[in-house]
Amino acid sequence: MSSRPAVLVLNGPNLNRLGIREPEIYGAMTLADLETGLRADFPDLTLRFEQHNSEAGLIDALHAADTVETAGIVLNAAGYTHTSVVLRDAISSISTPVVEVHISNVYARESFRHTSLIAAVCSGVIAGFGVESYRMAVRHFADRP
Amino acid sequence: MSSRPAVLVLNGPNLNRLGIREPEIYGAMTLADLETGLRADFPDLTLRFEQHNSEAGLIDALHAADTVETAGIVLNAAGYTHTSVVLRDAISSISTPVVEVHISNVYARESFRHTSLIAAVCSGVIAGFGVESYRMAVRHFADRP
Amino acid sequence: MSSRPAVLVLNGPNLNRLGIREPEIYGAMTLADLETGLRADFPDLTLRFEQHNSEAGLIDALHAADTVETAGIVLNAAGYTHTSVVLRDAISSISTPVVEVHISNVYARESFRHTSLIAAVCSGVIAGFGVESYRMAVRHFADRP
Amino acid sequence: MSSRPAVLVLNGPNLNRLGIREPEIYGAMTLADLETGLRADFPDLTLRFEQHNSEAGLIDALHAADTVETAGIVLNAAGYTHTSVVLRDAISSISTPVVEVHISNVYARESFRHTSLIAAVCSGVIAGFGVESYRMAVRHFADRP
Amino acid sequence: MSSRPAVLVLNGPNLNRLGIREPEIYGAMTLADLETGLRADFPDLTLRFEQHNSEAGLIDALHAADTVETAGIVLNAAGYTHTSVVLRDAISSISTPVVEVHISNVYARESFRHTSLIAAVCSGVIAGFGVESYRMAVRHFADRP
Amino acid sequence: MSSRPAVLVLNGPNLNRLGIREPEIYGAMTLADLETGLRADFPDLTLRFEQHNSEAGLIDALHAADTVETAGIVLNAAGYTHTSVVLRDAISSISTPVVEVHISNVYARESFRHTSLIAAVCSGVIAGFGVESYRMAVRHFADRP
Amino acid sequence: MSSRPAVLVLNGPNLNRLGIREPEIYGAMTLADLETGLRADFPDLTLRFEQHNSEAGLIDALHAADTVETAGIVLNAAGYTHTSVVLRDAISSISTPVVEVHISNVYARESFRHTSLIAAVCSGVIAGFGVESYRMAVRHFADRP
Amino acid sequence: MSSRPAVLVLNGPNLNRLGIREPEIYGAMTLADLETGLRADFPDLTLRFEQHNSEAGLIDALHAADTVETAGIVLNAAGYTHTSVVLRDAISSISTPVVEVHISNVYARESFRHTSLIAAVCSGVIAGFGVESYRMAVRHFADRP
Amino acid sequence: MSSRPAVLVLNGPNLNRLGIREPEIYGAMTLADLETGLRADFPDLTLRFEQHNSEAGLIDALHAADTVETAGIVLNAAGYTHTSVVLRDAISSISTPVVEVHISNVYARESFRHTSLIAAVCSGVIAGFGVESYRMAVRHFADRP
Amino acid sequence: MSSRPAVLVLNGPNLNRLGIREPEIYGAMTLADLETGLRADFPDLTLRFEQHNSEAGLIDALHAADTVETAGIVLNAAGYTHTSVVLRDAISSISTPVVEVHISNVYARESFRHTSLIAAVCSGVIAGFGVESYRMAVRHFADRP
Amino acid sequence: MSSRPAVLVLNGPNLNRLGIREPEIYGAMTLADLETGLRADFPDLTLRFEQHNSEAGLIDALHAADTVETAGIVLNAAGYTHTSVVLRDAISSISTPVVEVHISNVYARESFRHTSLIAAVCSGVIAGFGVESYRMAVRHFADRP
Amino acid sequence: MSSRPAVLVLNGPNLNRLGIREPEIYGAMTLADLETGLRADFPDLTLRFEQHNSEAGLIDALHAADTVETAGIVLNAAGYTHTSVVLRDAISSISTPVVEVHISNVYARESFRHTSLIAAVCSGVIAGFGVESYRMAVRHFADRP
Repeated sequence: MSSRPAVLVLNGPNLNRLGIREPEIYGAMTLADLETGLRADFPDLTLRFEQHNSEAGLIDALHAADTVETAGIVLNAAGYTHTSVVLRDAISSISTPVVEVHISNVYARESFRHTSLIAAVCSGVIAGFGVESYRMAVRHFADRP
Repeated sequence: MSSRPAVLVLNGPNLNRLGIREPEIYGAMTLADLETGLRADFPDLTLRFEQHNSEAGLIDALHAADTVETAGIVLNAAGYTHTSVVLRDAISSISTPVVEVHISNVYARESFRHTSLIAAVCSGVIAGFGVESYRMAVRHFADRP
Repeated sequence: MSSRPAVLVLNGPNLNRLGIREPEIYGAMTLADLETGLRADFPDLTLRFEQHNSEAGLIDALHAADTVETAGIVLNAAGYTHTSVVLRDAISSISTPVVEVHISNVYARESFRHTSLIAAVCSGVIAGFGVESYRMAVRHFADRP
Repeated sequence: MSSRPAVLVLNGPNLNRLGIREPEIYGAMTLADLETGLRADFPDLTLRFEQHNSEAGLIDALHAADTVETAGIVLNAAGYTHTSVVLRDAISSISTPVVEVHISNVYARESFRHTSLIAAVCSGVIAGFGVESYRMAVRHFADRP
Repeated sequence: MSSRPAVLVLNGPNLNRLGIREPEIYGAMTLADLETGLRADFPDLTLRFEQHNSEAGLIDALHAADTVETAGIVLNAAGYTHTSVVLRDAISSISTPVVEVHISNVYARESFRHTSLIAAVCSGVIAGFGVESYRMAVRHFADRP
Repeated sequence: MSSRPAVLVLNGPNLNRLGIREPEIYGAMTLADLETGLRADFPDLTLRFEQHNSEAGLIDALHAADTVETAGIVLNAAGYTHTSVVLRDAISSISTPVVEVHISNVYARESFRHTSLIAAVCSGVIAGFGVESYRMAVRHFADRP
Repeated sequence: MSSRPAVLVLNGPNLNRLGIREPEIYGAMTLADLETGLRADFPDLTLRFEQHNSEAGLIDALHAADTVETAGIVLNAAGYTHTSVVLRDAISSISTPVVEVHISNVYARESFRHTSLIAAVCSGVIAGFGVESYRMAVRHFADRP
Repeated sequence: MSSRPAVLVLNGPNLNRLGIREPEIYGAMTLADLETGLRADFPDLTLRFEQHNSEAGLIDALHAADTVETAGIVLNAAGYTHTSVVLRDAISSISTPVVEVHISNVYARESFRHTSLIAAVCSGVIAGFGVESYRMAVRHFADRP
Repeated sequence: MSSRPAVLVLNGPNLNRLGIREPEIYGAMTLADLETGLRADFPDLTLRFEQHNSEAGLIDALHAADTVETAGIVLNAAGYTHTSVVLRDAISSISTPVVEVHISNVYARESFRHTSLIAAVCSGVIAGFGVESYRMAVRHFADRP
Repeated sequence: MSSRPAVLVLNGPNLNRLGIREPEIYGAMTLADLETGLRADFPDLTLRFEQHNSEAGLIDALHAADTVETAGIVLNAAGYTHTSVVLRDAISSISTPVVEVHISNVYARESFRHTSLIAAVCSGVIAGFGVESYRMAVRHFADRP
Repeated sequence: MSSRPAVLVLNGPNLNRLGIREPEIYGAMTLADLETGLRADFPDLTLRFEQHNSEAGLIDALHAADTVETAGIVLNAAGYTHTSVVLRDAISSISTPVVEVHISNVYARESFRHTSLIAAVCSGVIAGFGVESYRMAVRHFADRP
Repeated sequence: MSSRPAVLVLNGPNLNRLGIREPEIYGAMTLADLETGLRADFPDLTLRFEQHNSEAGLIDALHAADTVETAGIVLNAAGYTHTSVVLRDAISSISTPVVEVHISNVYARESFRHTSLIAAVCSGVIAGFGVESYRMAVRHFADRP
């Protein structure tokens, strides 16, 4: 039984297409590459990775991860960021801290991407650093005492 | 084969966390407690209970319940109340009456909870009475001739 | 001297026309019928009925009813629901709980009826069940320990 | 017959509850205390006090006070401040100057209290100083030559 | 008992100040002059005149006038035109036709006077012709077969 | 050469379809019927009638009618009422008074018909009386000294 | 192995109720009828049909269909049309062209159906022709060289 | 005298510049090419073509085409689509069905092109298929029994 | 055949009333005076002047002027500035540069004059300098190499 | 070393022009006159006066004045009142109470002057009394025990 | 001592970067080049040049320039154009006329650049002509008698 | 002469009050503590620190830092984040990348803090991690090759 802190990296809809979809916005790295890279960067953490295209899948994952082992959750909710009250409620319903991340600078894209329904119930927001956005967020949990 | 009228109590996203999530808003009663309490209150009804975190799960449940046996549906759509056109369309697509219920007084919370996309196609709305909101709605169907 | 709990049923403007006015929306029952029916349904309560067309009449009634004898107030504020800050302030100024009721489903009517200035300071809201809306609200106070 | 200048202190809806209603917002002083205090502070003025819960009562008081004897009117329109076109029209219809006062800092409360329909036709606005708001306004008229 | 058709000329808040208030907008004619003039113009009608500063007074007058003798109601709701849902509901609740009139051209004044909550439930609207607005409206009822 | 006062009755787009188009809204009377009726009603006036589907046609007609002979212009601008800044400017550019008329009660129809860009520069507005709206407006000019 | 061009006809939530749900809006034809009819009309195409009530189901179907064999996708996203950023992102993430179709004229219904979040990333939009909307869209792909 | 069904293809402002104007948006085909192509595609129809830069020209054409011979009207109202109430009224005033077409995908352009004032009174809308949009619409009328 | 650069000065609706209409806003100079003055100021240019009250007239003039001889177009679109998508499209459809001019400072007038639909597709905007606005614009084209 | 309570009178942009700028709005009194008058009125207070045209100057002054000697700050933030988040933050960042004052009745001027970003974090607001607004505010601090 | 008319060319924030910053929008000319060019073009004027990144600097410059020697001020307020009430007030507080200029066509850029808070209090606006915008404005003052 | 990469940490208005101001939001660490901490964390970087209460100070700092030595700028614009077009323009005018940081989760505070005018022209945004937000941003520049 691991005593290492666990971090869940939770990806939302269409991120299974990472590296395939619109590389001029999202870059060429795939979700598998992201996982490999983060595991290499944080050997002392128990990293778990999930990706769901449905709100329900994300909600279930948030509920399930809400245990004492989980130090934090790194959430890229993709398009649901801007429209999902239920995801917001799911984050409110757990006590594990959640960090909202985005690969692209959402504030420089279409106006409907400028508002986040979930940011107010997250610990913090990191956007625009490509896959480094994830690394910053994971390190945030790794560095916590 | 039962000749008792049937009522479906349909709960939406995050309500599986009832009693765990934000008790200062939603109280300490769990979904199982709710079910036990309502069955005790309405021994002459065939009560069915479902909870879904997904819109599709709720839509399927609404479609499936649209039979002559069903006297009515008590729907707590939670966060989907405020955003879901497809749930509204599902309610419109069935002939069984639906009552919208809320545990908390949604009008005293964040402004995005003040509007309901589904209220206009429901028979009525009951909000703010805790789990009693459900009991009021079930009795409404029990009392109908 | 009665030790039975008292409930005030307080009706707002134009409800003196109930049963006369727009029966396709409000039904054929008059205010007198409503009173008779509720008295029959709740013989153990001290029910009082008032109807006022003016904001001031409603405010005075709310102030006057704010005594230890009053278990609760059932308020159909009619058109003032959507416009009256002073009624909201009157409800805030008393400690007796108030339940907002509507005969019709206001959310299925003109858009200016979709917002309530008073809901946020009421205990709960019941709308769309015809005169049964009142019965639900009175029972809520009758059932309280 | 007094030759002292007269000032009307005109209070709107729910202010009869002053000292009873929400003391954390409005303080513990009653309307009677306010009257006693102001009479003591301004012995050389003919002070008149009225309180009305209705728009019509306030309008009538404004019309009646519009005489050469009245140096000014101190008006706390309470909740009507934010909604009443007719009160605005009543102030426009008289030539006596009116000062709008508020006990609490309305700008630090709900957003619907941030706008005043009557401020544009008053001489000035004083808000947030508790009952001192009234004293400032009365002194304004007392100091005028 | 008169067999002549009856018309109610119903004036709202502050119109008791007609001829005194802002003559550059409303002219020098008083309400009494208006009554005298209309009686002279329409000797074959039973004209009744009421003026109320309160919504409740106007509502009561509308309810009371809703008899078979009343051919129509000429309503200058003044400032309530723009804010009163309850007046709209009162007009909807009667079967006697109502014509909305305004002395001044409300569309050339402040923007909050450009919308009417009651126009949609009136037969028609006449604005901007001074007291002739009333004469046009009364004649409309006089000319009806 | 006539010394009788002249009035121009100016109709806008689609009113050539009057009596054909949507009779449930506009009635069965044609534009020719309207002309015949008004000439019969006002034998002492020089009535001129024009109908144009284009803004330019209406503008030219307004410019041309701006002579000392013209007592007034009765304008039914139809759909241009709600959208045409240039028509507003044309009315402002002449000194002859213009009355805006509508056959139907535009305030009871789609919301884009509730605002008028031209009302603010007209003398007055008459709406909802069918073809009687025109008669009221013509008489207004006939009765002026 | 077929060399015929393939077209995916992808239907969204509640369309499994076609022919049952609100026939006054959607007609009496079922989804099975639609499939039979289109296969008969386009014998030279490889037509595939899917229907999903969930966003995730639609997203997965879009991802899966993004192969060189697929000439195009005909998408009736139903209620998701107006609310789903994630569906928009899924369409952006594939290179196969997508045509948005609607059975009813969505622009003649409730105002929340007048905007489409996905239209901007589709090739084109066809709305209001009943099931013929689908035939038009399929033929568009059939006719492409 | 032809017994073939007639279809009017009615083009609005600036479409006389088709093939010249902004070919990256509208393509290289001219209006004459469009006419030639459609006549070749539909030899069994009586096709008529009109193009007008003015609203009045389009209105007159709609009125004139409203005969029993006309099976339908294909209307590209261009920029008037988004601003013209009078064009909407003209479509409402005739009984011949009208299909709204656009060459480009208007939903992917400036936001003021995302709303159509006329769509609600047309039978359907086709946008984004280049000149094929016209062919789809004409075939719709050709295929009607 | 002139080798001098040509400039079209194109005036919109109601500008034929210049010098007559509202001189406090537009000054006393007529359109003929403007033409005379500009010809005197720019003897080396081929100046052409057109004025149209219709959108179609302005569109035709823009199309016709789009030749290699035309150095530029000075456009005062008057009221169409704020409402005309079709004029914007006409400017976009030609390659000759267009400068938007206004006699008055439109930004100091009614709020509906503060936005321009055409400015974004013009080279530049000049407003508020009286007829000098035109001279500035013409010189801009005269000075270009 | 003075033991008298200190009050800072802090004036914002353009108030150095007092008495010069728009005297019809602001009166003829200069900032020096204001200082002289207030010193005469409050001989027992240590009054300090600062005026800054920059937000930074005002912020620095607020920070510097936040000492135990300062009983309060009278702030006329002029145009920054309506736009400055940083001034609001500066007021929040100190514990000395601040009263917002205005010389003119800002609610009777342009609509962008009707909202205050700083009022919510001030103790109170006084507007419309000319330079007396300052005297009222200073006395408020003088009168505090 | 010069008797030549003086014109102040006043540049706002970031314009010190002219020629360096975003040359695709602003061109390659520096502020020094602009000064040199204008001095050459207007040898008979006393031209002064100032550039400030702060609102306070611009306000002070406007105040200081308000002397009888100054014929006018050419102001490029850059980003303050769209947000600065205090700059607007500064322009209102002086009697010297101010012309607003912009290098780029601000109406063709981001939507927050389409509104100007200062235009209403300037004499006129010139936008979109590159540095020629300045020359037009300076000549305007040079040509005034 | 240092060859180490330089990073500018640029703080905006009121941040000089860090550790003093609202510690429940911003924590107890002062700006000096922040500097000491970051220097310790990044010994291989040349870190520079500036704090300005004025927009002009921040703009000048941005301009001055735009040299080849500067790897990046970490900007906490505080209240200017939400209102400053000129700061946005300053960031656009330099080629050095800028990261926007916030100590608190601005999205969980007042609604006017939910929008950022500068985010769209920054490389990325980090908010809500306390002073760790700065460390994340500095490391971003330190890690770049």
